[in-house]
Amino acid sequence: MDERIFALKGTILHTPTPQAFEIRDGGYVVCRGQTVEGVYDALPETLSAIPVYDYTGKLIIPGMADIHQHAPQYGFRGLGMAMSPQSVWSSWFEQYSLPEERQYADLAYAERAYERFTEDLLRTATTRTCTFATIHRAATELLMEKLAAKGFVSYVGKLNMDRNSIEGLSETTEESLAETALWLERTHDRYEFVKPMITPRYTPSCTRECMAGLQSLIRRFRVPTQSHLSEGLDEIEWVKSLEPDAGCYGETYDRYDMLGTLVPSVQAHCVFPTEEEFALMRRRALLWVAHCPQSNFHTTGYAAPVRRYLDAGIHVGLGSDMAAGSTLNLFRAVTDAVNASRIYWHTAERKGDPFAKRTYLSFEESFYLATKGGGSLWGKAGSFEPGFWFDAVVIDDSALSDLNPRTPRQRIERAAFLSDERHVAAKFINGRKVL
Amino acid sequence: MDERIFALKGTILHTPTPQAFEIRDGGYVVCRGQTVEGVYDALPETLSAIPVYDYTGKLIIPGMADIHQHAPQYGFRGLGMAMSPQSVWSSWFEQYSLPEERQYADLAYAERAYERFTEDLLRTATTRTCTFATIHRAATELLMEKLAAKGFVSYVGKLNMDRNSIEGLSETTEESLAETALWLERTHDRYEFVKPMITPRYTPSCTRECMAGLQSLIRRFRVPTQSHLSEGLDEIEWVKSLEPDAGCYGETYDRYDMLGTLVPSVQAHCVFPTEEEFALMRRRALLWVAHCPQSNFHTTGYAAPVRRYLDAGIHVGLGSDMAAGSTLNLFRAVTDAVNASRIYWHTAERKGDPFAKRTYLSFEESFYLATKGGGSLWGKAGSFEPGFWFDAVVIDDSALSDLNPRTPRQRIERAAFLSDERHVAAKFINGRKVL
Repeated sequence: MDERIFALKGTILHTPTPQAFEIRDGGYVVCRGQTVEGVYDALPETLSAIPVYDYTGKLIIPGMADIHQHAPQYGFRGLGMAMSPQSVWSSWFEQYSLPEERQYADLAYAERAYERFTEDLLRTATTRTCTFATIHRAATELLMEKLAAKGFVSYVGKLNMDRNSIEGLSETTEESLAETALWLERTHDRYEFVKPMITPRYTPSCTRECMAGLQSLIRRFRVPTQSHLSEGLDEIEWVKSLEPDAGCYGETYDRYDMLGTLVPSVQAHCVFPTEEEFALMRRRALLWVAHCPQSNFHTTGYAAPVRRYLDAGIHVGLGSDMAAGSTLNLFRAVTDAVNASRIYWHTAERKGDPFAKRTYLSFEESFYLATKGGGSLWGKAGSFEPGFWFDAVVIDDSALSDLNPRTPRQRIERAAFLSDERHVAAKFINGRKVL
Repeated sequence: MDERIFALKGTILHTPTPQAFEIRDGGYVVCRGQTVEGVYDALPETLSAIPVYDYTGKLIIPGMADIHQHAPQYGFRGLGMAMSPQSVWSSWFEQYSLPEERQYADLAYAERAYERFTEDLLRTATTRTCTFATIHRAATELLMEKLAAKGFVSYVGKLNMDRNSIEGLSETTEESLAETALWLERTHDRYEFVKPMITPRYTPSCTRECMAGLQSLIRRFRVPTQSHLSEGLDEIEWVKSLEPDAGCYGETYDRYDMLGTLVPSVQAHCVFPTEEEFALMRRRALLWVAHCPQSNFHTTGYAAPVRRYLDAGIHVGLGSDMAAGSTLNLFRAVTDAVNASRIYWHTAERKGDPFAKRTYLSFEESFYLATKGGGSLWGKAGSFEPGFWFDAVVIDDSALSDLNPRTPRQRIERAAFLSDERHVAAKFINGRKVL
């Protein structure tokens, strides 16, 4: 077993709780093997001889978890973001998402596109991901290989889509289930940190037969699941017409073990839960909400009720939702989540919503969601507490400074609003230096 | 007179109307002196010998007009953006804005800070600005000098604040008016393209005596004015208590010729107009609304009713509102304005607001606001139509490409979402190459 031990020296910030940053300016965070040994103002005598990466003057934060992103959509990032919000489902999805994904039947295309995606992802502050691929097994395996080669900790999903797709991007129910079973067999134990996640695209794209088949695979392989839930009002109406016997959209997943019962489930968006759906969600201990604020502005013009989820004890993490979000830089989600919560607060308060009291998020809370909130899907991740996976990102914010001295707390807030890949100076995942 | 004539060759995009881009891929935009001669697919024979800057493969767009920004707040950009929205007025303003501005009494500080601000502004796509300075005459003159030296077309305001400020950042009414008069005398004709703009900070910071004195200066110097209007609900209540005889906040400017009667007036924000205020605004032909969406999310959690203003024929441009907005990159305002309009649309529609129909903006409209919308404050600016001021920005978007060919229209949308100063390859203002 790897028992490397080393330290990073610099301005260390993390959020063990959502309420506040713990900060050590000029401190050390020590890695033993793949996990955090501890954070110190000065190295203890027993550790005085270990190698030290000196990042004095730079910010050292936990790696971020992007728990909802579509890797194959990276090609059209920043496009179609301003289409009519009344036609996102019919136009953006059919004009951009599906035709782009169709190209991944071609492995040579997938090779070039996924290489670019993983290269660019490497330069961000993200260390862990939940990533949608396409329906194509071979291309999905290629994506997993690339994520593993670059050192990421990822769940990757080969999609299931046996209804409501476009010409050239569909599967029969049998194909969908057979390919998924084969893919699970092939990848279940292939990598230490890149794992398959069962991924029906969303209820409108999967028949009940397909969902029942996936449920059998969940029970056989015990892998987690991900999908989309209650993202838009039109979508919710559509699900109601497709699955009229379900009490709420969430039930269309729950009845197939895909809402956090047997295995962990990540559900993206959750912007418009009904009271019934909310009550169901709060009973599901293994459910994670992937909050994707930029995407929500784009697709619905609104914001998810994140404070309600947090108050109910539901796990929440952040997602870029590439490419209904335009960037892989998860700092954008951190700052957008703050804005989204203000928008929710403002409109809810004016409408007399009983949840309007303090529904907005602090910067600390939003940073927590991006690190420990989403990281909790992997157990102990997203914080520098002892025993946590050693994911660390070094931010060189010197180019963002001004004429006044700023505190570490101010510097990380400014970096969240203004930094990009130019400011990511180094990155470690599970104790391994990957950048 | 300068009768230089030259052309830029590349992929030319502009929005003569808000409805659509006019695009010439591989075309020429010709500058004669300081204005646009025309846009051509190929150079006419009479122009065949003029110098050509070859930007083949790059996007050439009109320069952008940032019609609301606070230059002295650049130092704390990205800070305090996540404070409680219920305390923005009392905490963000008093913790960041005013203490930072107080430092500009020190000219050495102003020299360093304004040099950095204008250097960084130069690297953006912005060519024209309406810029708030501080109450300090000397530092304001220094800012004007720097903007002029770098080639900008700007209106700059020495602020007036004779009430409700903090220790060390206030003026008596006499000082405020005397310094403003002296400043107007000194700078009124000093530069060709950088001009003074009368700038009461906002109604709560100026007594009626001060406003009346400024009105006299408006009538004497005939310079335009700028201020803040109906930005937040608390602020509006405060104005009501300070000026109980005014029928609406806007009237507190209008009665002193500061809402677009005698001279042009730029009013920032205008998020919460009453019906009375809206009716007043639409009667004022020389009023420009500076829409600052990122700032609105930050300070109020809501969005201005831009569609209403446009439908009423009120001029609208975009503002970064540095530093209630975090960046000088006005593309951020373009994309945020689209999102803000969706948020307004969504919430208005759900509330049964009669203006809910198609209140969202298209990307074309938002781009138009950033260029010709704000540019119209200077007459013919923000477009490549013949006779318009020759402001042009060259965007090298090659680093933002993907594996698929994209149209110029797609490329400019992607650049709006993803570009920053790295992608600004060249800039011309009034026919002069400044970058």
